[in-house]
Amino acid sequence: MFNLKSYLNKKVKQVNCVLLDILQESSDSSRILKAMKYALMAGGKRIRPVLCIAAAEAVGNESPNVLKAACALEVVHTYSLIHDDLPAMDDDDLRRGKPTCHIAFDEATAILAGDALLTLAFQILSSIECKTRTDMVKLLRIIHTISSAAGYKGMIEGQMRDLSSENSRLDIEDLSTMHALKTGALIEASVNTGILLGGGSEKQIQQLGIYATNIGLAFQVTDDILNVEGDAELMGKAIGTDEIRNKSTFPSLLGINESKIFKKKLINNALQALDNFDSRSDPLRAIASYIIERKR
Amino acid sequence: MFNLKSYLNKKVKQVNCVLLDILQESSDSSRILKAMKYALMAGGKRIRPVLCIAAAEAVGNESPNVLKAACALEVVHTYSLIHDDLPAMDDDDLRRGKPTCHIAFDEATAILAGDALLTLAFQILSSIECKTRTDMVKLLRIIHTISSAAGYKGMIEGQMRDLSSENSRLDIEDLSTMHALKTGALIEASVNTGILLGGGSEKQIQQLGIYATNIGLAFQVTDDILNVEGDAELMGKAIGTDEIRNKSTFPSLLGINESKIFKKKLINNALQALDNFDSRSDPLRAIASYIIERKR
Repeated sequence: MFNLKSYLNKKVKQVNCVLLDILQESSDSSRILKAMKYALMAGGKRIRPVLCIAAAEAVGNESPNVLKAACALEVVHTYSLIHDDLPAMDDDDLRRGKPTCHIAFDEATAILAGDALLTLAFQILSSIECKTRTDMVKLLRIIHTISSAAGYKGMIEGQMRDLSSENSRLDIEDLSTMHALKTGALIEASVNTGILLGGGSEKQIQQLGIYATNIGLAFQVTDDILNVEGDAELMGKAIGTDEIRNKSTFPSLLGINESKIFKKKLINNALQALDNFDSRSDPLRAIASYIIERKR
Repeated sequence: MFNLKSYLNKKVKQVNCVLLDILQESSDSSRILKAMKYALMAGGKRIRPVLCIAAAEAVGNESPNVLKAACALEVVHTYSLIHDDLPAMDDDDLRRGKPTCHIAFDEATAILAGDALLTLAFQILSSIECKTRTDMVKLLRIIHTISSAAGYKGMIEGQMRDLSSENSRLDIEDLSTMHALKTGALIEASVNTGILLGGGSEKQIQQLGIYATNIGLAFQVTDDILNVEGDAELMGKAIGTDEIRNKSTFPSLLGINESKIFKKKLINNALQALDNFDSRSDPLRAIASYIIERKR
């Protein structure tokens, strides 16, 4: 029986270790580095790097390169959280139970720390060692995949739609599209990155793309449900905020029970997409279930 | 006699053409694309892309790849302007005679448009066509050079120091370092990118590095002088703002006359670094002189 808890513990430790190594801090470290590290080491779930690593394992082997690319994905994700929390955006004071970056530092520093992390992701990616021509083709494709997923037709467009959706009523299709852009795109890029570095085929990219799309959306449905009936202390953030902000969410459109049925359906789709994969994809299977069962 | 004006006209037209092609707008374009295009097409001088192209020409030939990379550099520069203008940073309402992005749109859109442009730069770079292994090695090095120059040890650290220097007195060395980071790093990266794509040698990279460092600083000294005695209408922005903000500038530390002597010395250093280059580097020579003679 596959033990997800110990798997996650191990992978998160590895990711944190590489992240700390990248952001080596010393006594005379700059304020910007301190702010970057503050946001990056605030105890995130590391879903994207773990997905990247697990996807690489599902099609081949883990290598130091996978770990580096996985960290770049977390760095992109963290930048997006810092900017989303800003006063001009969601104006959140708490993230993972700690003051958000602009509260702990200041607004200018938070904007620049986000910028610096986004930039750092491409420093990390472009420094990944390539031995062969094929390695380089893959790496350039990964850089393109991640930048496109994070860009104005991906994550950023999702955040734009999220901001403009406050106080307006989205239908379920618009809501799903918004989340597919805002969180789905980078999750799919994480899985794609893992497959490419793991040596997977185009067909595997396509199949795990279905997996990624479904767990990405299921992740968001779960987030919405937790915002209604989660444990604020456990999550390190307030609940009920979506309703206060009058945001369209899956529970507000479908009701809580239908939302729970919906997330299970999505996870079943994700698991089905893994049908042609062997036991090396057990971590991906377990992560799919974890995503909807999580309490924080 | 080399005609800089017609050279700049031609290159700026080419750059603008490629930029417009990248940001193809249609009637149903997203708000974020509109904001990105607004900032990008606001009539910038295109110094960085022109330097990239001129450096490529100085060591070899221009190619469509050079133009693409040159545009990526302008995209990075534009992102930094949008974020620098934000209320939490310099809080500027006008840029190049037009309302800044957060005034023309809103603050959240401006933050995201900056993010989107930064991300776009890496989409552009990673989509540059590579025929050989050597091309790919170069391209990955360029991505690393640009991301490092723009990052927390380059441009972003420069902006951090600029923000913290308001109302404090820097000495001439700290001021020079701040500008070397804030504008010099990306200017040097622009020249490096051109040399790499033009097929230059490591020695040429080193020599043009000296050129870039000196014109980068000269550019800033000129900016500071223009803020004292420039023509606000011609520049499309207010003058005298540095003094109002009590910022350390070259004129405030050295006086106007010494600042003018200093910028000439810097340009002489830059021209000397071109001694081993033939007439193909005439554009670089002319740009050096233009940088300190410009009125806007």
